[in-house]
Amino acid sequence: MLTLQVDLAGRGYPIYIGSGISENRDLYLAHIKSKQVLVVTNQTIAPLYLDKVLSCLSGYEVGQVVLPDGEQFKTWEVLNQIFDTLLTRRFGRSATLVALGGGVIGDMGGFAAACYQRGIPFIQIPTTLLAQVDSSVGGKTGVNHPLGKNMIGAFYQPKCVIADTNVLMTLDDRQLSAGLAEVIKYGLIRDSRFFEWLEQNIDDLLARNNGALSYAIERSCRNKAEVVAEDETESGVRATLNLGHTFGHAIETGMGYGEVLHGEAVAIGTCLAAELSKRLGWLTEKQVERIVNLFIKAKLPVSPPAGMSAGQFIELMSVDKKNVDGEIRLILLKMIGEATLPIAVDTKLLRQTLEFCLPSSC
Amino acid sequence: MLTLQVDLAGRGYPIYIGSGISENRDLYLAHIKSKQVLVVTNQTIAPLYLDKVLSCLSGYEVGQVVLPDGEQFKTWEVLNQIFDTLLTRRFGRSATLVALGGGVIGDMGGFAAACYQRGIPFIQIPTTLLAQVDSSVGGKTGVNHPLGKNMIGAFYQPKCVIADTNVLMTLDDRQLSAGLAEVIKYGLIRDSRFFEWLEQNIDDLLARNNGALSYAIERSCRNKAEVVAEDETESGVRATLNLGHTFGHAIETGMGYGEVLHGEAVAIGTCLAAELSKRLGWLTEKQVERIVNLFIKAKLPVSPPAGMSAGQFIELMSVDKKNVDGEIRLILLKMIGEATLPIAVDTKLLRQTLEFCLPSSC
Repeated sequence: MLTLQVDLAGRGYPIYIGSGISENRDLYLAHIKSKQVLVVTNQTIAPLYLDKVLSCLSGYEVGQVVLPDGEQFKTWEVLNQIFDTLLTRRFGRSATLVALGGGVIGDMGGFAAACYQRGIPFIQIPTTLLAQVDSSVGGKTGVNHPLGKNMIGAFYQPKCVIADTNVLMTLDDRQLSAGLAEVIKYGLIRDSRFFEWLEQNIDDLLARNNGALSYAIERSCRNKAEVVAEDETESGVRATLNLGHTFGHAIETGMGYGEVLHGEAVAIGTCLAAELSKRLGWLTEKQVERIVNLFIKAKLPVSPPAGMSAGQFIELMSVDKKNVDGEIRLILLKMIGEATLPIAVDTKLLRQTLEFCLPSSC
Repeated sequence: MLTLQVDLAGRGYPIYIGSGISENRDLYLAHIKSKQVLVVTNQTIAPLYLDKVLSCLSGYEVGQVVLPDGEQFKTWEVLNQIFDTLLTRRFGRSATLVALGGGVIGDMGGFAAACYQRGIPFIQIPTTLLAQVDSSVGGKTGVNHPLGKNMIGAFYQPKCVIADTNVLMTLDDRQLSAGLAEVIKYGLIRDSRFFEWLEQNIDDLLARNNGALSYAIERSCRNKAEVVAEDETESGVRATLNLGHTFGHAIETGMGYGEVLHGEAVAIGTCLAAELSKRLGWLTEKQVERIVNLFIKAKLPVSPPAGMSAGQFIELMSVDKKNVDGEIRLILLKMIGEATLPIAVDTKLLRQTLEFCLPSSC
């Protein structure tokens, strides 16, 4: 087992990475200081892993909430099921919440922990590659609003993250690829050597080679932890983690939450950001091709979905959190391995790029 | 104008206290760094003060949300109206929220600011005595849940508080008395000289003598600011601010939010806490009488409402945030001017005390 420390004054926490570690009772004992524990999971994960986690929690007063699975359920109404259970069970401010699932469970479990009685401790056990490399690191929690993704939330750090590589063996292929989109992102924004490593090892990752997966998770988490330690609340460099996400959120909102996976939307969005970066003279045609090809090899979509117009994109992008006083701002690429901070983009150029990439290949 | 500084590392802020200061444009200019400003208020306050505040905000891009007035509207559904407006208006993460109203508006405006895009700046303009002396100081924000008061929320500090004593001139008598309940609380938990001052000056306060009100607000805010600076997230001494509140919250929840004002419920709850403190041998009969008499002089109720049973009290009190692992814990009084930290109370003694005080005078 490998331990990575996320370095945040007073709120730092360890990320444990290893095979089978979600069944290591000692990890739970080390981080749960209360008698009461609520495990929050979803209908896909519960039959596979809930009993294994519960067996590590014998001796605690344990409650459980099993939510429906999918981004379309990342809403206040579903979140409220967690509050209902906590209150019905008379769980107090010292109770610990364990979020066992992918990014949606992590975001909702974390936000429930942030808000319940103004904050209770929580532990993340991410069960998708995407959650292990991205959403479980850095304390972003929240729910979607019909008018925008992740618009309601909090920065709230877990007590620890338990990233068990075993759980990736049951992950479906589409979810595995979606996770690789965020892995590739780290290479693009700040780690060109990792990007090259990914070009060479993408087949091993898709074949779920444990060594390759562990290395990719560790290097991704390390990249993210460094960025978050530098800028916890996204006043600067943390925004670079949003490469491709402004386009991606527009796709997720425009197509209806749950239709396109978050990682898939990020892959498409990153190709759009690469095309825009090329038009600004930063990336060469060849570099854009390398980026698009790596996403294709990772079995990810690279073109916007048919049925969305450039106007709809721009409308949806105008509620992005990086915008300032209503002006759309994007993360773009200066080169492979270096992202810009959020920059205002000329709407005409943005529209041209979208129209060029819609509706066929980018 | 008097300025009190709330001393919190990195999140400190000033409380301005004075007559007519909500119409001082310079205060807004000093604390609003964004172009976009959303004013959140209610239907009672809007006709009286909204235009005055808006006239100070000329030059900004200003939105407004006018919510229904009352504790029964401190819900997620009503809170969502604030998010809807922020998103529909395309307000970004740098927008400032101004909460113009009593405790309910402050709690909901503050919680909306805490959660919108994971946190935007906000300013409090408390328009009730209770909000000026209590809810606008210390960063507690939130909404009620059908199963418990203030169960969903965040600790989130404003950029400044503008406590304009002029607005108290239009406050109705019942609201003024409700505010005095929290003022009296500061005397009871940590400032016996202030308690004595209140015994001597209660009539001037009820007559809205500006000098007396300003002094009471300043001394209350100073007491609260000292407590909050020592213990921002209520791991220790901050809990003493909850004297009478566990009983009080049970009354508010049991009677239906909005039936009994928060301050009225706190007055009744404090009398119950005093009676319990007497039964534990800490307060004398005479001290309990002094406490009850001051509440009566302040035109506050001192007996639990008819229609609530001891069993219902205990049931409702068992979801209080101070409880640990399901055990009811209360703030009690060692003497006038000294509160206990939360202590576990024998359920039998609690039931006897409630039955003694129900349904007539305590």
